Amino acid sequence: MSFESEFAAELAWPEYYRRVKNGDVPILIPFGSMEQHGHHMPMNVDVLLPTEFARRVAQEVGGLVAPPFTYGYKSHQKSGGGNFFPGTTSLDGASLISSLKDVIKEFARHGNRKLCIVNGHFENSWFISEAIDLALRELKWGGITEIKIVVLSYWDFVDQEAIAKLYPNGFLGWDIEHGGVLETSLMLRLYPDLVSLQDAVEHPPASFPPYDVYPPHEDWTPSCGTLSSPKEASAEKGDILLDVCTRGIVGALEHEFGAKVRTKLAQFA
Amino acid sequence: MSFESEFAAELAWPEYYRRVKNGDVPILIPFGSMEQHGHHMPMNVDVLLPTEFARRVAQEVGGLVAPPFTYGYKSHQKSGGGNFFPGTTSLDGASLISSLKDVIKEFARHGNRKLCIVNGHFENSWFISEAIDLALRELKWGGITEIKIVVLSYWDFVDQEAIAKLYPNGFLGWDIEHGGVLETSLMLRLYPDLVSLQDAVEHPPASFPPYDVYPPHEDWTPSCGTLSSPKEASAEKGDILLDVCTRGIVGALEHEFGAKVRTKLAQFA
Amino acid sequence: MSFESEFAAELAWPEYYRRVKNGDVPILIPFGSMEQHGHHMPMNVDVLLPTEFARRVAQEVGGLVAPPFTYGYKSHQKSGGGNFFPGTTSLDGASLISSLKDVIKEFARHGNRKLCIVNGHFENSWFISEAIDLALRELKWGGITEIKIVVLSYWDFVDQEAIAKLYPNGFLGWDIEHGGVLETSLMLRLYPDLVSLQDAVEHPPASFPPYDVYPPHEDWTPSCGTLSSPKEASAEKGDILLDVCTRGIVGALEHEFGAKVRTKLAQFA
Amino acid sequence: MSFESEFAAELAWPEYYRRVKNGDVPILIPFGSMEQHGHHMPMNVDVLLPTEFARRVAQEVGGLVAPPFTYGYKSHQKSGGGNFFPGTTSLDGASLISSLKDVIKEFARHGNRKLCIVNGHFENSWFISEAIDLALRELKWGGITEIKIVVLSYWDFVDQEAIAKLYPNGFLGWDIEHGGVLETSLMLRLYPDLVSLQDAVEHPPASFPPYDVYPPHEDWTPSCGTLSSPKEASAEKGDILLDVCTRGIVGALEHEFGAKVRTKLAQFA
Amino acid sequence: MSFESEFAAELAWPEYYRRVKNGDVPILIPFGSMEQHGHHMPMNVDVLLPTEFARRVAQEVGGLVAPPFTYGYKSHQKSGGGNFFPGTTSLDGASLISSLKDVIKEFARHGNRKLCIVNGHFENSWFISEAIDLALRELKWGGITEIKIVVLSYWDFVDQEAIAKLYPNGFLGWDIEHGGVLETSLMLRLYPDLVSLQDAVEHPPASFPPYDVYPPHEDWTPSCGTLSSPKEASAEKGDILLDVCTRGIVGALEHEFGAKVRTKLAQFA
Amino acid sequence: MSFESEFAAELAWPEYYRRVKNGDVPILIPFGSMEQHGHHMPMNVDVLLPTEFARRVAQEVGGLVAPPFTYGYKSHQKSGGGNFFPGTTSLDGASLISSLKDVIKEFARHGNRKLCIVNGHFENSWFISEAIDLALRELKWGGITEIKIVVLSYWDFVDQEAIAKLYPNGFLGWDIEHGGVLETSLMLRLYPDLVSLQDAVEHPPASFPPYDVYPPHEDWTPSCGTLSSPKEASAEKGDILLDVCTRGIVGALEHEFGAKVRTKLAQFA
Repeated sequence: MSFESEFAAELAWPEYYRRVKNGDVPILIPFGSMEQHGHHMPMNVDVLLPTEFARRVAQEVGGLVAPPFTYGYKSHQKSGGGNFFPGTTSLDGASLISSLKDVIKEFARHGNRKLCIVNGHFENSWFISEAIDLALRELKWGGITEIKIVVLSYWDFVDQEAIAKLYPNGFLGWDIEHGGVLETSLMLRLYPDLVSLQDAVEHPPASFPPYDVYPPHEDWTPSCGTLSSPKEASAEKGDILLDVCTRGIVGALEHEFGAKVRTKLAQFA
Repeated sequence: MSFESEFAAELAWPEYYRRVKNGDVPILIPFGSMEQHGHHMPMNVDVLLPTEFARRVAQEVGGLVAPPFTYGYKSHQKSGGGNFFPGTTSLDGASLISSLKDVIKEFARHGNRKLCIVNGHFENSWFISEAIDLALRELKWGGITEIKIVVLSYWDFVDQEAIAKLYPNGFLGWDIEHGGVLETSLMLRLYPDLVSLQDAVEHPPASFPPYDVYPPHEDWTPSCGTLSSPKEASAEKGDILLDVCTRGIVGALEHEFGAKVRTKLAQFA
Repeated sequence: MSFESEFAAELAWPEYYRRVKNGDVPILIPFGSMEQHGHHMPMNVDVLLPTEFARRVAQEVGGLVAPPFTYGYKSHQKSGGGNFFPGTTSLDGASLISSLKDVIKEFARHGNRKLCIVNGHFENSWFISEAIDLALRELKWGGITEIKIVVLSYWDFVDQEAIAKLYPNGFLGWDIEHGGVLETSLMLRLYPDLVSLQDAVEHPPASFPPYDVYPPHEDWTPSCGTLSSPKEASAEKGDILLDVCTRGIVGALEHEFGAKVRTKLAQFA
Repeated sequence: MSFESEFAAELAWPEYYRRVKNGDVPILIPFGSMEQHGHHMPMNVDVLLPTEFARRVAQEVGGLVAPPFTYGYKSHQKSGGGNFFPGTTSLDGASLISSLKDVIKEFARHGNRKLCIVNGHFENSWFISEAIDLALRELKWGGITEIKIVVLSYWDFVDQEAIAKLYPNGFLGWDIEHGGVLETSLMLRLYPDLVSLQDAVEHPPASFPPYDVYPPHEDWTPSCGTLSSPKEASAEKGDILLDVCTRGIVGALEHEFGAKVRTKLAQFA
Repeated sequence: MSFESEFAAELAWPEYYRRVKNGDVPILIPFGSMEQHGHHMPMNVDVLLPTEFARRVAQEVGGLVAPPFTYGYKSHQKSGGGNFFPGTTSLDGASLISSLKDVIKEFARHGNRKLCIVNGHFENSWFISEAIDLALRELKWGGITEIKIVVLSYWDFVDQEAIAKLYPNGFLGWDIEHGGVLETSLMLRLYPDLVSLQDAVEHPPASFPPYDVYPPHEDWTPSCGTLSSPKEASAEKGDILLDVCTRGIVGALEHEFGAKVRTKLAQFA
Repeated sequence: MSFESEFAAELAWPEYYRRVKNGDVPILIPFGSMEQHGHHMPMNVDVLLPTEFARRVAQEVGGLVAPPFTYGYKSHQKSGGGNFFPGTTSLDGASLISSLKDVIKEFARHGNRKLCIVNGHFENSWFISEAIDLALRELKWGGITEIKIVVLSYWDFVDQEAIAKLYPNGFLGWDIEHGGVLETSLMLRLYPDLVSLQDAVEHPPASFPPYDVYPPHEDWTPSCGTLSSPKEASAEKGDILLDVCTRGIVGALEHEFGAKVRTKLAQFA
């Protein structure tokens, strides 16, 4: 039995319940997508990365990682290339909202009061917010009001110091980091077998006019699917990212969820 | 790059597209749940098992495995113990239906015409059917009519011969096999580190009256959560199950999807 | 005025309210379908039979029968022939769920606390469960928590002794009893004018592979629409079924709803 | 077998299909409610009356009557007393809309192209219209455009001549005819055993201000639930109503559905 | 800053909150549509008129006018010409219901307990009722039960005396007043620049059979889009209407919302 | 009659139809919200500004402005202060999505093929995208595929040159421009009577951690509701903004909608 696992679903229910019933253990829910990430990376990047961040953070704060959502909201042209690529496999907003709402309410039913959605796919953001708003509304109707939910996207914890190291030639914004240095460096460090940097296509950063068009002009997106070149990615940069984001998220959860969270997993042993 | 992977989301999109665009490669979509499985097994059994069956079948028929759905429909008392257990984390029917509907339509958009839902959680069954019916309806509205979708639960391929070996003292039906010999044997064979047979609770097979009550009488379910004792489970029985179910599913897909399916993965190398 | 009627909707509201306001009178809600039942039976079998069982049980336990739902969920190939037959007229899952949810909540508003859904169409089962789950959730939000709802399909009360009499040549399972001996015998006993046994088509029991395909292979279903031959049906077998199922359901309701339920209708006279 | 039945669900499917497959036979769908109708009438008046009108019209025009919808939209204070009465059992608008939409689409799938919704409960009206609009939209998406659907409430066919006979002391409008002379006379003629005129409460016609309030002021509704006194009702007036409404509806369907409709049921014998 | 404005959205939030926080100030929510109104009037008549009535009433009772809903339910042939006209731009019932439900709940969150929906488009009526029913249900789940909501259509306050002046040659019912004397007179008085009476088409009053058909027979509607001639409209009649309707609505709100409502806006100065 | 109006709903339908029937006239749909904008501005800023931009652009490109949506998605803490302020009156995501979807489909029914959503409230963005995606899907099902929809938020057209003039002391990002220099300058120029700059609260720019919390920490938002001080706003800066944004939007529409769009309104005179 995986008494040491940080993955909630790898525990038997009595052990899970022993940990969570008083509501102090943070539950981290990774939310990803199946989305093209260029010629050099697989389509589960947005699942693998937030799941690994969630695992590292859970280790630090004594939390548990819920099963990841493996499909997310439709890829947007300016942040993911667009939903017209083969392979990109997306949910309508309503499906994402209702599924996450259900899962939040179930974790609350178990006794959890400290949840954290760890987002790995930018386009999920607003639908995650809506899911949380609806879940809190229904939980309140059912008499549960003391719950707290943190939402974050791991890249938002990259600070200026890290950016300077990662992008010595200048940073062009997270929006076009789709399949670029950020994600590729993390994958190179964590899942090198799934990356084939030599297949990456070098191209200038994507640039878009200040509006969207539907159906999208497919030719606005570089044909390879990435929005900036990953050629400068490296496992070393992955280490920088792992460090700064993990530390940042741990700090956020400690701040929001309080001293009890600091209890390490060791205490459960 | 995982050119050899059977997992669609481990491919880069150009390789994925190369394989699927003519519609002949079966896409296998595992549908699981996060559900208590007694004191001796983790709560992701219903994800791990159909995903592994899907992977083995994909190897045989040259198919690809889609990312699994990690949450499923509410546990029913007579087949999963009931949705009141801590840890069991379920979706409303509407969430399951709309999410799977979306994903089916997306795979069809990519060009796929041969899909197979590999179910690992009995309670998903009818909502999967509804999702498929709605997806086919909308695909038809969009002009796609030639698609074929097979739905199966792996245990339905266990034949009488295997049952005789697995249950020498008599078989009491799949309904109470929750956390019992079937699932435990497969987990012992595939994920022994996640099983702790010594923690299993021995108890007589659950027996229920011929009706349901809501809210459920929690004391109808054995308090450990399994519906029959897993004590007779073994890795050897896991082999029997792996063999009979994999062969059965492969046969079904070859029958339904035709000769082209037999093309082994090797052809893509 | 039908003071003696077991049908709630045949009462004037003051009499109805006099009976139900303290919450002790069971309300039985028949849920049927409009579905083909072969060449020898009408398409309202699944409405007529649960309504008649509900009426008989209501007489025994002092209950009231709500108006039946006359349309149900889509016919499934392995239990009802499939939803492609002309005449079969079905609801989407969402329609069934929301309609039944509404009706349960309305009966609770009247003061009822003991409900029983009497199902006559197998395919309704899971959507009935979902409707109840959602209704109980919303009732709880509105402050009503003490309600109890029994769900049953009448055929589940046929015991081994009855099966031995009904199927002297062996029983092949309820799944293929669509339009077969069970339903035909009951109809012959209760509504002989609606049965034309000479038009029944004799055919071997339907047999299906252990998976489903969508769109369904129509030729998997016997072209007449029944899944087993009704030739051995008889009014006498209908009596056996009426007796065993009525007794079984009465027993279940007495067990679940307690002594007060035993009060016969006579007390209202 | 009821080859002569006007009720579609009393036919076996081959006979049903023989009649409807060319799309010329009108399908009449009664839509009712379970609603209090005062102290003297049962709560299924709004089901019984449109079903009987549908049956009579079907006889005249060679049509078929679909199973009635037995629950309808919430009772409105000014036309049904209000939805706060015990016994009144209503659907949310969304449930009515989606259920009727489904049924219309199913009848279209069978080949029917001439449908008529026969409404028996005023409050259903707008939700029936919405259901039809959505059904026609989806049928169009599926390639079916030539369908025609008539919607009517039987009382709208009472002409001035009949009104003069029915209300010799002056007519106050259909809005307050809830449980009054119209419905009571029809019930006295058709279902006298379900009427207890001596229990009717005599009261002046309900009068309401020109606005609505929610939650409703319950004391705006006469406490007995009717909106006008049924004391002047009689079976003879029921005959007048049966005649004028049946003739009117038959005329409407002949006008809308054309000559082929006139084919009497006899032709099927 | 518009401290004197009757329009809630023209206030800064602190001033708004100062007024509404004790729940005594009526909030008037105009609900309109974008709908053709013949050759002589613009398509926002159903927004402009209820908004102006709401403003006048708000002045009298010390209320505030919420932003109007600018789109409404589908035009019905017998009251608005039908939804097939170019320009008429309508919502599905579900969209109207959920939007208004949301807005009602938000105003209740601010502390408001006295709401009034001022309807300007007949077809909205039943969907407004449903929205209110659902909003009150959810507010009750959230613990807010003391709220009161008045719904009205301004034309329902025209009394017999006014009708005699407006229609000296006889009144044919509000149903065919679409684009006729009522609306045109009001527009001539309030927005003369938006009316071009010389472009109005004179035609006999529309007359319809006592049933509806879908898809509608477009030729049942006068081709200009109005249902009765506006030729007898005048600004003077507009004054009569403004007076009788404003007085009526003010009286209704004073009656329903009590003495505190009478406090004039002056008190806020 | 306002033959010269840029507002579609101020036209009579024949004139509207004359203009739009060939599909070349852009329809601009403003989407706003009712949201607090600090102590110095009204709560309809997000309606007034996009409506005025739409009007100016329509004049330039010969387009028409649809009625604005007056309610929008829930205010987010980091871009609008949060949805807990009194006065802020918001829709659930589903309501926004379905309402806009309906309206887009209706304009397409009239013949329009060039639509532009002019957004005035950041939080609407993703739900607008979803509405468009669903509308295009359904339009495609109905056979309309050649439609093009541009989505924009006016502030995205402010270029670096303008930013240098507007924020001589440095620009902190659009995210905290809620109620700040941007919106206040535009309002001072366009609706000075609705602005009370002396009531504005001076405060340092809001700064937020890189995550969200639900329920929100209300004290993260400056208590006045703005996210940056509007003290440096001026009507002159409003002129700069009007100029750069109008020119930008006109250019975008000319680019996307082609030469025919350049036809000035004059041609309709």
